[in-house]
Amino acid sequence: MSTIKGIAASNGIAIAKAYQLTTPDLSFEKKKIADPQAEIDRLDQALQTSKQELEKIKEHALQSLGEEHAEIFSAHLLVLDDPELVNPMKDKIKSENVNAEVALNETATMFINIFKDMDNEYMRERAADIADVTQRVMAHLLGVSMPDPALIDEEVIILANDLTPSDTAQLDRRFVKGFTTDIGGRTSHSAIMARSLEIPAVVGTKEITKQAGNNDMIIVDGLEGKVIIQPTDEELATYKDKQAAYEKQKEEWAKLKDEPTFTKDGEQVELVGNIGTPDDADGVLANGGEGVGLYRTEFLYMGKSEMPTEEEQYQAYKAVLEKMEGKPVVVRTLDVGGDKKISYLDLPEEMNPFLGFRAIRFCLDEQTVFRTQLRALLRASAHGNLKIMFPMIATLDEFRQAKAVLKEEKEKLKKDNIAVSDDVEVGIMVEIPATAVLAKQFAKEVDFFSVGTNDLIQYTMAADRMNERVSYLYQPYNPAILNLLHNVIEAAHSEGKWVGMCGEMAGDPVAIPLLLALGLDEFSMSATSILPARTQISKLDKSKLASLKEKILSMGTAEEVVSFIKEKIGD
Amino acid sequence: MSTIKGIAASNGIAIAKAYQLTTPDLSFEKKKIADPQAEIDRLDQALQTSKQELEKIKEHALQSLGEEHAEIFSAHLLVLDDPELVNPMKDKIKSENVNAEVALNETATMFINIFKDMDNEYMRERAADIADVTQRVMAHLLGVSMPDPALIDEEVIILANDLTPSDTAQLDRRFVKGFTTDIGGRTSHSAIMARSLEIPAVVGTKEITKQAGNNDMIIVDGLEGKVIIQPTDEELATYKDKQAAYEKQKEEWAKLKDEPTFTKDGEQVELVGNIGTPDDADGVLANGGEGVGLYRTEFLYMGKSEMPTEEEQYQAYKAVLEKMEGKPVVVRTLDVGGDKKISYLDLPEEMNPFLGFRAIRFCLDEQTVFRTQLRALLRASAHGNLKIMFPMIATLDEFRQAKAVLKEEKEKLKKDNIAVSDDVEVGIMVEIPATAVLAKQFAKEVDFFSVGTNDLIQYTMAADRMNERVSYLYQPYNPAILNLLHNVIEAAHSEGKWVGMCGEMAGDPVAIPLLLALGLDEFSMSATSILPARTQISKLDKSKLASLKEKILSMGTAEEVVSFIKEKIGD
Repeated sequence: MSTIKGIAASNGIAIAKAYQLTTPDLSFEKKKIADPQAEIDRLDQALQTSKQELEKIKEHALQSLGEEHAEIFSAHLLVLDDPELVNPMKDKIKSENVNAEVALNETATMFINIFKDMDNEYMRERAADIADVTQRVMAHLLGVSMPDPALIDEEVIILANDLTPSDTAQLDRRFVKGFTTDIGGRTSHSAIMARSLEIPAVVGTKEITKQAGNNDMIIVDGLEGKVIIQPTDEELATYKDKQAAYEKQKEEWAKLKDEPTFTKDGEQVELVGNIGTPDDADGVLANGGEGVGLYRTEFLYMGKSEMPTEEEQYQAYKAVLEKMEGKPVVVRTLDVGGDKKISYLDLPEEMNPFLGFRAIRFCLDEQTVFRTQLRALLRASAHGNLKIMFPMIATLDEFRQAKAVLKEEKEKLKKDNIAVSDDVEVGIMVEIPATAVLAKQFAKEVDFFSVGTNDLIQYTMAADRMNERVSYLYQPYNPAILNLLHNVIEAAHSEGKWVGMCGEMAGDPVAIPLLLALGLDEFSMSATSILPARTQISKLDKSKLASLKEKILSMGTAEEVVSFIKEKIGD
Repeated sequence: MSTIKGIAASNGIAIAKAYQLTTPDLSFEKKKIADPQAEIDRLDQALQTSKQELEKIKEHALQSLGEEHAEIFSAHLLVLDDPELVNPMKDKIKSENVNAEVALNETATMFINIFKDMDNEYMRERAADIADVTQRVMAHLLGVSMPDPALIDEEVIILANDLTPSDTAQLDRRFVKGFTTDIGGRTSHSAIMARSLEIPAVVGTKEITKQAGNNDMIIVDGLEGKVIIQPTDEELATYKDKQAAYEKQKEEWAKLKDEPTFTKDGEQVELVGNIGTPDDADGVLANGGEGVGLYRTEFLYMGKSEMPTEEEQYQAYKAVLEKMEGKPVVVRTLDVGGDKKISYLDLPEEMNPFLGFRAIRFCLDEQTVFRTQLRALLRASAHGNLKIMFPMIATLDEFRQAKAVLKEEKEKLKKDNIAVSDDVEVGIMVEIPATAVLAKQFAKEVDFFSVGTNDLIQYTMAADRMNERVSYLYQPYNPAILNLLHNVIEAAHSEGKWVGMCGEMAGDPVAIPLLLALGLDEFSMSATSILPARTQISKLDKSKLASLKEKILSMGTAEEVVSFIKEKIGD
């Protein structure tokens, strides 16, 4: 019935009922009450219902997402059972004759304020738990319902203002058929997550949460970036056809699933996948990936109350390596900071977090965190074809320091007779302009480069890709970016090293011919982009593209580049 | 007696009494009072004293800083006379029997909240005025004194946590002999301002405001980055000698004041100054500057309640051009946003302001602001040797758009028979990596480049220079930065264009030999750095330095570069 335009963030067509993932209005009035016992009963009832709900959520999380995700709900249940929190609420109702909402809110706020100012991570975590649980109890007191993504047990399309990484960590891919958000762009976390979960998504619609209500029928067209609310029968039929056609195209792509990747003129490149969890590796294999080009290890650290142990990490890395059966797996060491905060790590509040204390900068400072991860990786290296990659390297000093720490941990493990591979390649992300400029010097010391275009573009253009006022400057095809890529690839090849790319650009059909022209060796992308990319590459002539390189590199604007390459490929 | 280390931010030795520029504790208790009339009298007394004080401040500001700066105090005086604000305070004292502090605070807060939520710039400005004035009245009620930099009428050294650009706009250089702050680095605004005002400064002491009290005798050693609190007679004598020696060295430098700038082997370069206000141009001339390499026009827009008119701007630009008597004056168009906010301009709150909606990005969007400035500049161009420079240019599109707007305004002026020079060079700041990388393409279209190293370095290294956790990555001598500079200079020269530099790096004695080696044409710096730089350059051999270029550009780290160049110059 009504169509909203947004940004196509993950391919495919999804049709299902809307599920609004928004916090309801929890405002209330202060009332003098006549019957304190009746208020206490109301409070007990709300506590009880919340407890049952949390048990159910915990159970679901355990089954669909695993133990780590379920843990957070155990902490929440403990809060509800804590007499030191609950008794003062009841006292307040009796002594002040106030309604249960006031007693709940004032008592919880007091504890939250006490805990959150403590100089102790564990206590600050408790403050967050109390705040979370209080919201749920308040919702029950007010008779409004809280959205619980982990409780979803029928096919839905999620509608949200935005999805945080921890929201998405709770989504169950069996039931979440698609999602659509008010804000975000193609490279926002929710978009990346959608591609990794292989569910159609449209982001940046500005108004979907206002235009559609719970249970409205929704079509998410992740191919064209449209959302249809309450479609007519005719629209529904059209989109079911479109969905079927897309499925058919996917079958076409699937023919190349077990093939290596060759251009039309017989040049081989490597198509690999980006993953966030061991489970994602299944998606890469199912889509014909020749390896993992980027394993983002942040998810091991997120949605938890404490750091993952060396053993937990070892199990996760080993699981991926074993699943990939000798295919290369490039693991990026912890990339926190920027827009990725982790509650139990002591990360500063910053004026410009994207230009701040993140990734390798944090790891070289907090070496306990770093060394634990490196030990887990080294132990896992015995189980497959591991490559280690350091993020946000800006100087040779940083790379040398990180490599020295790795060497120390390797020697310690060997001394303890723990099996460690001797063939682990060690490389860096190229995502800081300084590193791309100085690629020649870096190429002498690294085993490989992997270009992180999302950050490289935003730093090179000095434009925050999340900021809508300047997002027009996020230009992957800008000749400045292409010249930097050219510099990185030339430098690596002259030292006999390989260059991959694990930013969003690697799976972009407009960028792929440009990257072939520049000589990129490895393309790492969302699993679902692999087969379309392989099909596209099989139709492209690399030597012809390479002959256009000098002309492209001397162009002045992104528009010029795009129209030129489209015209040449159209030939 | 005690010495604190900090960062040498502006050369010279200053000796004077401390003046703490900090907001005093204005907390108070709520009291039930018995005699409302006595409280009303207290309030009246505090209002009266505040008014007298503000009259005095306004008078001072008018004399030492000019009409625009004085205007803000007129607005403050109006607030104190407003019965709609004052009467409710008195009513509150009578009806609620509360002390004057409570009445003042609650009434003011109410009005501030009403005004600041209004969608109207003028009303939001009023909220800020009320907040400012309320602080002063509160201080008088509590019997504590408010610091008033504009009221200073004896020689002092300012001690502050940090100085904002609007704080410094109120300082009177006749009395402020030096300053020292807790936070900030060599490139913070307060440091840049100190060099522009030519007063010794030490920043980033971490604790000066805690260690020293008002009226303590203070020595600021801006040469070595030290602050001495309550010096002994012996220390005082030593530093007076040091001050005299520095004065003598300045006399030595002064010998080259009216000379052009030549290297030892007879190559000419240009040494020019950075200025913020027309008055600063006097400092550039007094220090032998061959022109103005950067006129930061933001100061015209700051510390005011509305935008400067075309006429006001014209007068300011004309004043500088006339003072410089035909010497080149490079004016940078408005560079707001980032850490420079202006209350009456509608700038968004941003997650990463340094990567946000600033400078030319804002100007191309808010064309009224931009066109007014360009018209003022074009009219002023008839009075001297004007060059116009656009800041934060990231793409050729932006430059072309900005130039087109300039052309339109020029044609309008000519049609109205207003005198406009036809020889105005139009160039860009090179401060975004993309622009440095694509210099060859830009060089075909611009008249000149001026490299803004402060921003170029922070974007290239992806490190906020204001963030202490990552300030180690702010590396001017990193070979990546030098390679970008090399690219910019080669590109410009191959198109017959000139390259200047107006970042802090241009006046840095370690950088100067490197910049000569790379072939930089114009060095723009704080006025006080010009003569030391001219002296240094006169002793350097450019052709010898140029022969080291290839080796320097192939180095891996900043440390290597610095030790190599120090060794070679030491020859």
